[in-house]
Amino acid sequence: MKDGQPKVIKTPVKGMCDILPGDMRLRQRVLSMIRKSYASYGFTEVETPAMEHIENLTSKQGGDNEKLIFKVLKRGRELEKALAEGGEMCDSGLRYDLTVPLARLYSNSRESLPSPFKALQIGSVWRADNPQKGRFRQFTQCDIDILGDATDLCEIELISATASMLTEIFALIGVTDFTVHVNDRRILTGAALQAGFKEEDVPSVLVSLDKYDKIGLDGIRAELVANGYDSAAADRYLSVYASAQGRDCEAFCRDIGEQFLPREVGENLREIMTCASGMLSEGVSVVFDPTLVRGMGYYTGPIFEVTIDGYGFSIAGGGRYDKMIGRFSGVETPACGFSIGFERIITILRDHLEGGMRLPEGSVAILVDRRADSGKKAEAFAEAAALRREGLTVTVQPMQKNIGAQIGRLEAEGYTEFRKIYND
Amino acid sequence: MKDGQPKVIKTPVKGMCDILPGDMRLRQRVLSMIRKSYASYGFTEVETPAMEHIENLTSKQGGDNEKLIFKVLKRGRELEKALAEGGEMCDSGLRYDLTVPLARLYSNSRESLPSPFKALQIGSVWRADNPQKGRFRQFTQCDIDILGDATDLCEIELISATASMLTEIFALIGVTDFTVHVNDRRILTGAALQAGFKEEDVPSVLVSLDKYDKIGLDGIRAELVANGYDSAAADRYLSVYASAQGRDCEAFCRDIGEQFLPREVGENLREIMTCASGMLSEGVSVVFDPTLVRGMGYYTGPIFEVTIDGYGFSIAGGGRYDKMIGRFSGVETPACGFSIGFERIITILRDHLEGGMRLPEGSVAILVDRRADSGKKAEAFAEAAALRREGLTVTVQPMQKNIGAQIGRLEAEGYTEFRKIYND
Repeated sequence: MKDGQPKVIKTPVKGMCDILPGDMRLRQRVLSMIRKSYASYGFTEVETPAMEHIENLTSKQGGDNEKLIFKVLKRGRELEKALAEGGEMCDSGLRYDLTVPLARLYSNSRESLPSPFKALQIGSVWRADNPQKGRFRQFTQCDIDILGDATDLCEIELISATASMLTEIFALIGVTDFTVHVNDRRILTGAALQAGFKEEDVPSVLVSLDKYDKIGLDGIRAELVANGYDSAAADRYLSVYASAQGRDCEAFCRDIGEQFLPREVGENLREIMTCASGMLSEGVSVVFDPTLVRGMGYYTGPIFEVTIDGYGFSIAGGGRYDKMIGRFSGVETPACGFSIGFERIITILRDHLEGGMRLPEGSVAILVDRRADSGKKAEAFAEAAALRREGLTVTVQPMQKNIGAQIGRLEAEGYTEFRKIYND
Repeated sequence: MKDGQPKVIKTPVKGMCDILPGDMRLRQRVLSMIRKSYASYGFTEVETPAMEHIENLTSKQGGDNEKLIFKVLKRGRELEKALAEGGEMCDSGLRYDLTVPLARLYSNSRESLPSPFKALQIGSVWRADNPQKGRFRQFTQCDIDILGDATDLCEIELISATASMLTEIFALIGVTDFTVHVNDRRILTGAALQAGFKEEDVPSVLVSLDKYDKIGLDGIRAELVANGYDSAAADRYLSVYASAQGRDCEAFCRDIGEQFLPREVGENLREIMTCASGMLSEGVSVVFDPTLVRGMGYYTGPIFEVTIDGYGFSIAGGGRYDKMIGRFSGVETPACGFSIGFERIITILRDHLEGGMRLPEGSVAILVDRRADSGKKAEAFAEAAALRREGLTVTVQPMQKNIGAQIGRLEAEGYTEFRKIYND
């Protein structure tokens, strides 16, 4: 900086990113595929402000995310008052997810929204997490939710909408095979009760089961015993899941028994799986996954997750959460949602597309000599206008001294045709 | 709320809005027209984080907006330290425009960006302004900028890209006539100097001239004299502008004289006007507007503004600002930009479209009876999938008890075809 100029900082705020053209083109391409695909299922987009009341962000709907809030300082007299009296300095913060704002929006606008309300939300969220590879402090979330419908039509629509959208997107890089894993929170609870765990211990038992992929069944048994649970219950729990993989969900539910699990839960899950797979392309399988838990505490019924075959992580997840909206709005509202891991999907696509998406085929650069007169310039722009009417991308730029190097840089950007305009 | 539940607030944060489906559909439609149109001119989109370093936001590039920053509180040990030592409590804030972040991005990534760099930015900005009708604390800005090109090809590209994009958008409501007003900061300065004002008084004189539409020439003269300026200079200034409206820009510049204004400034502006109008549709006129000032202090050359004929306000504005990027990055970088008033445009469109944009023609609702068995449900979803493949919007929903009322609500949403699925 020159002397006397204020100090400026060239890098983005810690843990956040500038997005440059190649990446942005890929993101926009994927976003418009998402919007188009979900719109065809009747999902309608809504948007909430980035800032939320601090009361809403700390209303115990957000789990550990409530520890990661970027808080916004009060202003003017409110701030002076807070400082003078030692009161709360912040009245709002940046949202850490799109679910709390959706619950607030729905509570505020329920009268003017359709029922059921099929919502699509795409937006940034902020978490003051420790930055690490692939984890940022500002990132995009993309959620669909159906509010006000208690039937399993929701689950079927959500699974088929998300899986068919992912099929379209991953076709960009030739990936066709996905697995949709489904389970039900009530089945998880029933199996734990049947093994002999107490109702109040179920959440803690599920935390252990959730580690199945990492520590296996023996590891889960060891952790349960280490946590002080009855080893006989841990053994019974182990035997339930030892024979579970690959089993039909209705048979698995029958073994748990009606005492612990209403029969219709298994029938219901079977129906969801059958109807959803009927709508999906050949590469997508819908499987019952008895050890699927999903972290958040608010799920109440079916839960689901999508993996790409050959990758070790999920790219989408969701489920039914019938209690949360009511806790916010005071009116009981069944709800079911699916969230895709947008940033993770972009990372996979970018790795395959070598750093983003290029300009469309046949993009034209018209290079105008600096000595060209008004008439020649007008000619250049008329040509550009005509090519754009044909649907082409056209840039008009001053010709640089080293025209070979200039064309090289334009080719790197993705331009393939070059026209030069000189005075006659 | 139920007893024992934390207090929640259903309305958005003061001065900010939830955007519901009809409005959102309109916004997304317009945004995709903007992206498509600007992309055809070779503008490439970039995105910066919502949060910026407080140093950058207070670096005197933002004018009065620097008083309106939403500041973000430090966290953890940094905050404890600041509170204990009475230091600065905030290290960052929400961006109030897209220009400061662009200058930072360009400074940080110049090596990997093309030159000239044609940038498109679309994003939210935040200002802790007093909320009033049509003015919000979070709103969308949409800017195009060309960095690194000192020639008038920039101005021509910017004007024709913006005017032709506006023509496409306003065709949605049958509005075809726009005026692009152009002027040059150097002409404004030359005219003030020629009238006898001192160089250091020019910014203040221009603040008065900027009120031309509101107070007229006599009002401007009175204000200049009231501000303590020489009444002879005010008279001469008045006579320059009294005969100015409708005059050719080159003739106007000749009258100011080469002593106060290099001849090429007028020639240059004429060339910009001629080349730009050549590319625009019949309804768009490009006119020299000698009293066009534009508020921000950072403009150095041509300036422009777009008005819709019959409306009293501008819907886009911009100009050349050759000094700002260099003050930020330390490397002199010519720059020229055009910003559209996105929220204002949406307001005009919405007024004409009666509350937003509807679903596409022929959207289908499939209503499934609650007693339908799995086979019937599968049939419903198969039908939905087939219709979606034809490109239709289809929702599958449970049939409600009062089916007439349900269809009425769906019609209000924009659905026009209804299919009912029952057991045989």
